[in-house]
Amino acid sequence: MKEIKIGLLGLGNIGTGTYKVLEMNRDEIEASAGAAVNIVKILEKDIDRERDIDVPREKFVSDPQDIFADPEIDIVIELLGGIEPASTMIEQALRSGKHVVTANKAAVAASYHRLMEAAEEGGVQLRFEASVGGGIPVLTALTGCLRANKFNRVLGIVNGTTNYILDKMTSEGLPYEEVLKDAQAKGFAEADPTADVEGIDAANKLSILMALMFDHYVHPKDIPTKGITEITASDIEDARAKNQLIKLIAYAERMEDGTIKYEVRPMRIIDTHPLSGVHREYNAVFVEGNVVGNLMFYGPGAGPLPTGSAVMGDVLEIIRSQA
Amino acid sequence: MKEIKIGLLGLGNIGTGTYKVLEMNRDEIEASAGAAVNIVKILEKDIDRERDIDVPREKFVSDPQDIFADPEIDIVIELLGGIEPASTMIEQALRSGKHVVTANKAAVAASYHRLMEAAEEGGVQLRFEASVGGGIPVLTALTGCLRANKFNRVLGIVNGTTNYILDKMTSEGLPYEEVLKDAQAKGFAEADPTADVEGIDAANKLSILMALMFDHYVHPKDIPTKGITEITASDIEDARAKNQLIKLIAYAERMEDGTIKYEVRPMRIIDTHPLSGVHREYNAVFVEGNVVGNLMFYGPGAGPLPTGSAVMGDVLEIIRSQA
Repeated sequence: MKEIKIGLLGLGNIGTGTYKVLEMNRDEIEASAGAAVNIVKILEKDIDRERDIDVPREKFVSDPQDIFADPEIDIVIELLGGIEPASTMIEQALRSGKHVVTANKAAVAASYHRLMEAAEEGGVQLRFEASVGGGIPVLTALTGCLRANKFNRVLGIVNGTTNYILDKMTSEGLPYEEVLKDAQAKGFAEADPTADVEGIDAANKLSILMALMFDHYVHPKDIPTKGITEITASDIEDARAKNQLIKLIAYAERMEDGTIKYEVRPMRIIDTHPLSGVHREYNAVFVEGNVVGNLMFYGPGAGPLPTGSAVMGDVLEIIRSQA
Repeated sequence: MKEIKIGLLGLGNIGTGTYKVLEMNRDEIEASAGAAVNIVKILEKDIDRERDIDVPREKFVSDPQDIFADPEIDIVIELLGGIEPASTMIEQALRSGKHVVTANKAAVAASYHRLMEAAEEGGVQLRFEASVGGGIPVLTALTGCLRANKFNRVLGIVNGTTNYILDKMTSEGLPYEEVLKDAQAKGFAEADPTADVEGIDAANKLSILMALMFDHYVHPKDIPTKGITEITASDIEDARAKNQLIKLIAYAERMEDGTIKYEVRPMRIIDTHPLSGVHREYNAVFVEGNVVGNLMFYGPGAGPLPTGSAVMGDVLEIIRSQA
């Protein structure tokens, strides 16, 4: 049997989740791939960190060139996070002729053209399903089986932390600060929640959605973005009195004149809209195509196993496209 | 530029919608295909029927062999509906070395193994995204980018007619018979609604979902099936008093011992469940994977343009897999 060898950059939470997905579902993954699939090298300094997986020590490397220059490695999975050095590493991997799979929305959104060019020049694929909506298979659908559509509009709940906070403010009538502390205690918000609550993470994801849906790339910093820090309990109560819910929405629309309108901000959603049923830390992407009409993709927008599901899904798409 | 030539079987409502999708979005479709895409022959007796598309008369043929034996035709789209003669025609097309795309749930469910074998022996693809959930891209996701999962469970609202009737009974407190007449008047139910209201259509779709998700084929006739004809206004009122909604659900689950449990019947859904937000004639498929967790795919489950979107999406998947 053929073997597909993978180099993994980063063995933090998401890296560990991805490794675990491969261990848990190896039979299904290898049957779908028609090949043995193995993570053979891992770039990670913190070898001794407590993880609930058993990784042979000889897989760890400290120099990324050990992976990029290895002719046996077919696919590189990048799970370092952050714009740099991740963008540079993705680019190097692509230019070394490796297919790359990443979950890194910050790097893909900030370095979009540079990475796409590197993939084209390397003659390889760059896939990033996990970068928007975590485990929800939305990007593959938008760029694949929905391509017989012109897309008109997207409304995304693409940040789990802010949806958790707004949902809990709504269901329990609590103020923002109190719910944020609860979310931090439960691991749904980070110690420094800025990127989430200020809408920066959602803007990264909107940048990616717009590039794929409208072939219109906008740097996340150029997307008008407003977070949820000023939402009060009385805003939420006022909305509820009108049968509306407040959600942080990543929005883009193709206007009549062909221009694209876009922003990230809290919006009121009528309680019969499918997005109103997106509770807790769940994500959903609502899209409108000119022939299919309205679609919604709902699911877990983060977490090691859901993200690992999307990463390994991309790995399978690459393997099968080469078969 | 390369040209992909398609033979179309059937130019009824769905065939006309598919033809129209290609006309409306030809630029997007051909860019995605990297080829010209044309429907060159159409098997249809009723040439003079009123349609809002302009089809050159010379495309019509009366003998399916004109399509199957034409070495220039790459892909056959089957939109005749019904088990036979559609199953036999799909099989003949596959054995003639044509890839086949169909929206025909009755034929795929009833003739599953026979058609799969014909595809394998013909060395071609059989795709049927439109057969479950209409325009919703659920089957491609389940068999593609979600394949790193073991699936545990599916709950589907896969019949628009019955969802429309139950939703209207719920929102307006009306009895079944009255809402059925309204649905028939508005075109959401057929003059003979048996296949929809008795759950037969949903059982066809569940058969397909089970075959793909669990690799476990069950003929639709062997799926325990109960429709919605006995649901009364007081059943719905009783459920509402408990914060529940009654929905016709196509259900299958992999049990602890590895066996698959399955049935189609009206079930009560708690009003915080994402499926409870599926109103009117919309469809949704809720699936649970062992690593991704809970996902839901929502959208239009029928209609000429949404179905045409899924059919042309399958055509694009075939073209790109051959590139």
